[in-house]
Amino acid sequence: MQPMNAQMGGYDRAITVFSPDGRLYQVEYAREAVKRGTTAVGIKCSDGIVLIVDKRISSKLLEQTSIEKIFMIDEHIAVASSGLVGDARALVDRARVESQINRVTYNESIDIETLSKKLCDHMQTLTQYGGARPYGTALLIAGISEDTPRLFETDPSGTLLEYKATAIGTGRPAVMKVFEEEYDESMTIQNAIPMGLKALHAATEGRFDVNNVEMGVVKLENQLFEKMTKEDVKIYVDEFEASIASSEEETEE
Amino acid sequence: MQPMNAQMGGYDRAITVFSPDGRLYQVEYAREAVKRGTTAVGIKCSDGIVLIVDKRISSKLLEQTSIEKIFMIDEHIAVASSGLVGDARALVDRARVESQINRVTYNESIDIETLSKKLCDHMQTLTQYGGARPYGTALLIAGISEDTPRLFETDPSGTLLEYKATAIGTGRPAVMKVFEEEYDESMTIQNAIPMGLKALHAATEGRFDVNNVEMGVVKLENQLFEKMTKEDVKIYVDEFEASIASSEEETEE
Amino acid sequence: MQPMNAQMGGYDRAITVFSPDGRLYQVEYAREAVKRGTTAVGIKCSDGIVLIVDKRISSKLLEQTSIEKIFMIDEHIAVASSGLVGDARALVDRARVESQINRVTYNESIDIETLSKKLCDHMQTLTQYGGARPYGTALLIAGISEDTPRLFETDPSGTLLEYKATAIGTGRPAVMKVFEEEYDESMTIQNAIPMGLKALHAATEGRFDVNNVEMGVVKLENQLFEKMTKEDVKIYVDEFEASIASSEEETEE
Amino acid sequence: MQPMNAQMGGYDRAITVFSPDGRLYQVEYAREAVKRGTTAVGIKCSDGIVLIVDKRISSKLLEQTSIEKIFMIDEHIAVASSGLVGDARALVDRARVESQINRVTYNESIDIETLSKKLCDHMQTLTQYGGARPYGTALLIAGISEDTPRLFETDPSGTLLEYKATAIGTGRPAVMKVFEEEYDESMTIQNAIPMGLKALHAATEGRFDVNNVEMGVVKLENQLFEKMTKEDVKIYVDEFEASIASSEEETEE
Amino acid sequence: MQPMNAQMGGYDRAITVFSPDGRLYQVEYAREAVKRGTTAVGIKCSDGIVLIVDKRISSKLLEQTSIEKIFMIDEHIAVASSGLVGDARALVDRARVESQINRVTYNESIDIETLSKKLCDHMQTLTQYGGARPYGTALLIAGISEDTPRLFETDPSGTLLEYKATAIGTGRPAVMKVFEEEYDESMTIQNAIPMGLKALHAATEGRFDVNNVEMGVVKLENQLFEKMTKEDVKIYVDEFEASIASSEEETEE
Amino acid sequence: MQPMNAQMGGYDRAITVFSPDGRLYQVEYAREAVKRGTTAVGIKCSDGIVLIVDKRISSKLLEQTSIEKIFMIDEHIAVASSGLVGDARALVDRARVESQINRVTYNESIDIETLSKKLCDHMQTLTQYGGARPYGTALLIAGISEDTPRLFETDPSGTLLEYKATAIGTGRPAVMKVFEEEYDESMTIQNAIPMGLKALHAATEGRFDVNNVEMGVVKLENQLFEKMTKEDVKIYVDEFEASIASSEEETEE
Amino acid sequence: MQPMNAQMGGYDRAITVFSPDGRLYQVEYAREAVKRGTTAVGIKCSDGIVLIVDKRISSKLLEQTSIEKIFMIDEHIAVASSGLVGDARALVDRARVESQINRVTYNESIDIETLSKKLCDHMQTLTQYGGARPYGTALLIAGISEDTPRLFETDPSGTLLEYKATAIGTGRPAVMKVFEEEYDESMTIQNAIPMGLKALHAATEGRFDVNNVEMGVVKLENQLFEKMTKEDVKIYVDEFEASIASSEEETEE
Repeated sequence: MQPMNAQMGGYDRAITVFSPDGRLYQVEYAREAVKRGTTAVGIKCSDGIVLIVDKRISSKLLEQTSIEKIFMIDEHIAVASSGLVGDARALVDRARVESQINRVTYNESIDIETLSKKLCDHMQTLTQYGGARPYGTALLIAGISEDTPRLFETDPSGTLLEYKATAIGTGRPAVMKVFEEEYDESMTIQNAIPMGLKALHAATEGRFDVNNVEMGVVKLENQLFEKMTKEDVKIYVDEFEASIASSEEETEE
Repeated sequence: MQPMNAQMGGYDRAITVFSPDGRLYQVEYAREAVKRGTTAVGIKCSDGIVLIVDKRISSKLLEQTSIEKIFMIDEHIAVASSGLVGDARALVDRARVESQINRVTYNESIDIETLSKKLCDHMQTLTQYGGARPYGTALLIAGISEDTPRLFETDPSGTLLEYKATAIGTGRPAVMKVFEEEYDESMTIQNAIPMGLKALHAATEGRFDVNNVEMGVVKLENQLFEKMTKEDVKIYVDEFEASIASSEEETEE
Repeated sequence: MQPMNAQMGGYDRAITVFSPDGRLYQVEYAREAVKRGTTAVGIKCSDGIVLIVDKRISSKLLEQTSIEKIFMIDEHIAVASSGLVGDARALVDRARVESQINRVTYNESIDIETLSKKLCDHMQTLTQYGGARPYGTALLIAGISEDTPRLFETDPSGTLLEYKATAIGTGRPAVMKVFEEEYDESMTIQNAIPMGLKALHAATEGRFDVNNVEMGVVKLENQLFEKMTKEDVKIYVDEFEASIASSEEETEE
Repeated sequence: MQPMNAQMGGYDRAITVFSPDGRLYQVEYAREAVKRGTTAVGIKCSDGIVLIVDKRISSKLLEQTSIEKIFMIDEHIAVASSGLVGDARALVDRARVESQINRVTYNESIDIETLSKKLCDHMQTLTQYGGARPYGTALLIAGISEDTPRLFETDPSGTLLEYKATAIGTGRPAVMKVFEEEYDESMTIQNAIPMGLKALHAATEGRFDVNNVEMGVVKLENQLFEKMTKEDVKIYVDEFEASIASSEEETEE
Repeated sequence: MQPMNAQMGGYDRAITVFSPDGRLYQVEYAREAVKRGTTAVGIKCSDGIVLIVDKRISSKLLEQTSIEKIFMIDEHIAVASSGLVGDARALVDRARVESQINRVTYNESIDIETLSKKLCDHMQTLTQYGGARPYGTALLIAGISEDTPRLFETDPSGTLLEYKATAIGTGRPAVMKVFEEEYDESMTIQNAIPMGLKALHAATEGRFDVNNVEMGVVKLENQLFEKMTKEDVKIYVDEFEASIASSEEETEE
Repeated sequence: MQPMNAQMGGYDRAITVFSPDGRLYQVEYAREAVKRGTTAVGIKCSDGIVLIVDKRISSKLLEQTSIEKIFMIDEHIAVASSGLVGDARALVDRARVESQINRVTYNESIDIETLSKKLCDHMQTLTQYGGARPYGTALLIAGISEDTPRLFETDPSGTLLEYKATAIGTGRPAVMKVFEEEYDESMTIQNAIPMGLKALHAATEGRFDVNNVEMGVVKLENQLFEKMTKEDVKIYVDEFEASIASSEEETEE
Repeated sequence: MQPMNAQMGGYDRAITVFSPDGRLYQVEYAREAVKRGTTAVGIKCSDGIVLIVDKRISSKLLEQTSIEKIFMIDEHIAVASSGLVGDARALVDRARVESQINRVTYNESIDIETLSKKLCDHMQTLTQYGGARPYGTALLIAGISEDTPRLFETDPSGTLLEYKATAIGTGRPAVMKVFEEEYDESMTIQNAIPMGLKALHAATEGRFDVNNVEMGVVKLENQLFEKMTKEDVKIYVDEFEASIASSEEETEE
């Protein structure tokens, strides 16, 4: 690591210092914390929006519910996170407060884009002013605003992008490869979940465990976020595994 | 240590600096303080929850009661700590105040998860903003909320996990090995205590002293935390030692 | 990079330190962040003003609308940005607030030069006082004030310049070469857009994609900013590509 | 010392930095200041509590009363200190103020444990937040609360321990050896003082001077702290020296 | 540069540090920023005062009016600047506000010397207190107070000097040579402008462009600052160039 | 000095850093500033208290009164200082304000010990909190409280000691040697002054000048501080010199 | 300079750090700034007080009046300065404000010693608290208080000394040599001025220019400060030069 450090010439020690080529190394290092995180995917569908996370629970003594990677922000918005767990919780708290402030002030639910920008503005601040570090976490912000499913991705620099389907965390490259081949804007939630599971499966290189999968949807019809029960998750996972098995059989034939 | 320092490239001197691979070394070093601490275990049972700590009191001139590792937070919540003693006390104070605020504000006892998150939010802050260091302590937060035993573990990063049975401090690996083999969700407090003692015994490599053992339970029936008297502790420890003796005999046979 | 660092003698680590030759390296490094940004052009015309940006969207899963490089500030002013995305958003927010304050305080729309100076004053502050870094972003500020089209360019030092036609970002040198040869103050919006596209095309070395082009105009007649629809953009791009094709044919003949 | 410094890898320069093995070197260095201090002992007895200090006054021009090592905090509590003199006075002031606040607020004398924890909470703060150093002093806090003699020892980390008999300062190891052999919980003040003098004598390797000895007791019967007069001290010291002489005679025989 | 740095011994990194010979290197480095700036001249005349600047505009796409080097502060005071553009604007803003405060508070125009001292007091502060850098700009402050033309020059240290004729920026040495030979206190504005142009011409080594020349006068008769129109500037420049041509002819003869 | 620095391992650069052996080097260095100061002595007598200072005035152009080393704090308290002159004045100002506050608040003169502790508390603060340096000065605080002469000595660490007779500054070792041999608690002011002069004379190795001697007494009978006039000083000095001469004669014989 | 730096061991970088021998190098370096300043002399006379400064004006284009080295503070007090020009102005401003506050609060003119101490208290603060540097300037404060001429000299440490005759700046050693030989307390202003000119002449090694001499007196009779007109200065200078010429003649003879 020493050589890398020497290469960086010390420009990577503080958020208030640009490198000679105009980069902020501390922001890039914060992105590394995200890249080491669990894989979370989000898919926009014609009838709503889906979030799926592979939680990677190592110990059976851990309560699975306590590793929460999908958080309800408001009744129409949910967030999936990857990266530093404590940082994610801090951002989720902030998102919930912003949503409640909007309800109290304007008597209506917050627009997803407005909320996402507010969160990113805060994250940007931590990349420009000293005395703190950037957030080591990325979020997928999903929900329905104005009868349209929206899916935003944030990163530690405070950049905000809207995707049709995307992923954060370790498995991102593998997931994006699947999505780029198979995603179709006319997909329904019913079609999107198997694609999401396939992508996660590809990202985890076969180490796929139904107990670790967390899923949530916001349906267009009722515009309410619902976290799936373990039973519902199991149905999708079983179906998916059956399909793999059969496709492998086919391949073997 | 100098070589290690060289390896770290100096990214480990401040909480406001990420390393090139997205890690916060100061948080990891704070975890080392926990790993050097006394071993504390927590076990969720069908009829309540148990906390046991091995206090390692070296001098007979020390009042055993003054090395307190299990603290009542509210009548339904207790905490076991490991790591820096002063830091633990600061967190315990904070937990007690939060509990009282809840009682005064809402006229009801605080939910354990809510309390745990508040503590972790505070701990996370000390991993993001400069001018201070993270807490060098971990907590097991145990109690009954909504007629359910809950057991949370915090760490210096502000991460919060819920366990069925877990341990913090020096003996964690040895304890977890025992729990992974023997823990059963249907266990009662009566069964759990011997298992906890066995695990602690394994962790201390036979240097087990009844005077150093601190135990507390929150029973589902009355939802009140009770610290065991030395006499009660002795009964369990004697029983446990008798069982070892007989099993060793068996082994020798 | 180490040698460069050695050359700089460490004068480049803080905004509060001049180098021996009176330079502020951190400001110059912030300019590098701009030079790595997307190319944006602005052209003043006899009948209004044009902004065109080449957004370089890599993934088809990204919603094109979410990479916004041209922002409406007020009904008569728009801004195109290049450099750090989060920084640009922070400046755009500030510009919008300043415009609204002007409307509320004086009951009239803000003068473009006044607004531009206010933004640059803020940027200058971040080059003189410690504890933060300069903005890693440049803006083209375009609009109509007092029946005259105006086009300002800011840079991270807080310098403000007014141009007849200019560009920011990676492609600036290539764009400026085209503008210096072809720009004419009597140009109308109709003539300016093909010239702008030609310049952007030159800057991107042929990797030109209609989907990535964002265009906006403020016309003198109504003094209102309008972002072009994708359909309108397509008409101009198709026309431009047809002209290239024919000119290449001519060249080949 | 340079090599030690190199070994420490620079983790020992600030209270806000953990070493890779989870230690706070600045706290450990503060403990060294205590280890260089005068020796103070405290002994819990069946009928009260005793504090004895060996003041080591070098110059006969110094007023012995001005080297005060035993301080009355409240009528039922006294403190003996070792380490940096100015730091000790600052802590003693704080203790006195806390005691008075308790009297004014609750109209009763402060509980010794409550007071001790308040002091340690303050000391802990100086081990976690930057811009200051930890206290280079340790205290023995002695007194009667709820009709029970209590004896607490603080250290620079803010750790609080209750002892039956203990010592701080240079002579601690020698004193503790005597106490571990001879201390008995049923001791009265009458028995404890000779033991304390013997221990101090052992710690000072025979360089024992009656003028330098400061003694104070809180008796259970009246629960009031009394500093012994020089005359009373002399009686005990003379008795002690006589006993040594006779025992040496015995040994010589 | 490394050797220079070594020579400076690191005393040049902060405004709060004197070098062993009592110098403030950061102030001297700020002066270097001024020395790299455009050349501005000021000349006191019997009937008023003249400011002339050579703006060095490189690109024809730049609006010449946007590179402003002479600023009206109040109706009787103008300022010419050299050095960092953003810093100059910040000082000009401050000067304008001070002038308006004076008008509002005392109902009369501000005295030039008072204004100049206020600006220099502010500049001095930035050379004594940390957390910021000195201004990298110098000003010529010109105007009429009490029926007398005044001409002040500021520098980054906050030093204030009054001149009969002076210059700031790159061309200062060349300009001062001309002024020292030719300046005469009885000069009128009519005589002073050709001398100023000659001096600027000497400073720019023949690379003289009428379009880049900015001129302003405050006449004693009306005590109002007037910026010359391009047409008026052209008359003086043409006349000057004719005179050179003829003098060169003479030289050639 | 470089080797010493290397030996110190850099622990000596800030007041907030302990060295590995628990020392605060910056406090010790501040004591060096005192050791380089003028010599001041204080002597407690049966009928009052005496302060004498050797001012070492080099230039005859200096007004002797302007080198003030003995300051009246209140009518019954005076202070003699050694070390940094500006620091001493700051402490004297603080002492005077404290005394006046006491008069205004309690309508009585301040107790000397109370005042001395207040000053030392303030000095201690500057040895624990960063952003400043300790005071480079020591004080002798002399006066009458409760019909008893008191003599306190402060040092940069905030330590407070009461002496029968003591000295601060360069000549301390030589003075203390004289005092240890000759001081007697029953001394009157009349006896003490010659002893003090003898001690000072020893400390200055014969370079004794009546013009440089400053003397003050607080007599028990009126409890008022009086600075001696030059004439009175001369009487004592002449007498002292006569006694030396005669004793030398005796020695020579 | 590097070796010097090495010798200093880095103790010279901050005002909050003592060197191992108890020195504050930054204060000493600030004194170097004074030593590089213009020479100013002050002389106390039986009938008032005189200040004379040699201004060293290099360029004839500079207005001599703008290099002001003698400043009126109040009608009875003036100040001569040497060292950093901006720092001097800041101190002069502070002195004037203090004088006005005194007039407004107590309805009488400020005592010179009180004023001088207030300024020195402020200067001392900048030698003890970080975040700023000491003033790089010295002042001679001259005037009449209580019908007595007073002459104070300040230095960057905040030390205050009263002199009969003194000097600050480059020429101090040469001036003091003259004063030590020739000064006489019974001198009148008429005698003192020639002596002051002779001393300044000695300090400037013959490079003496009447235009650069600034003189001011406060006469006992009216207690008002008066700056001499150039004409009056010329009379004294001419007289002085005549006397030199004649004495040189004498010498030559």
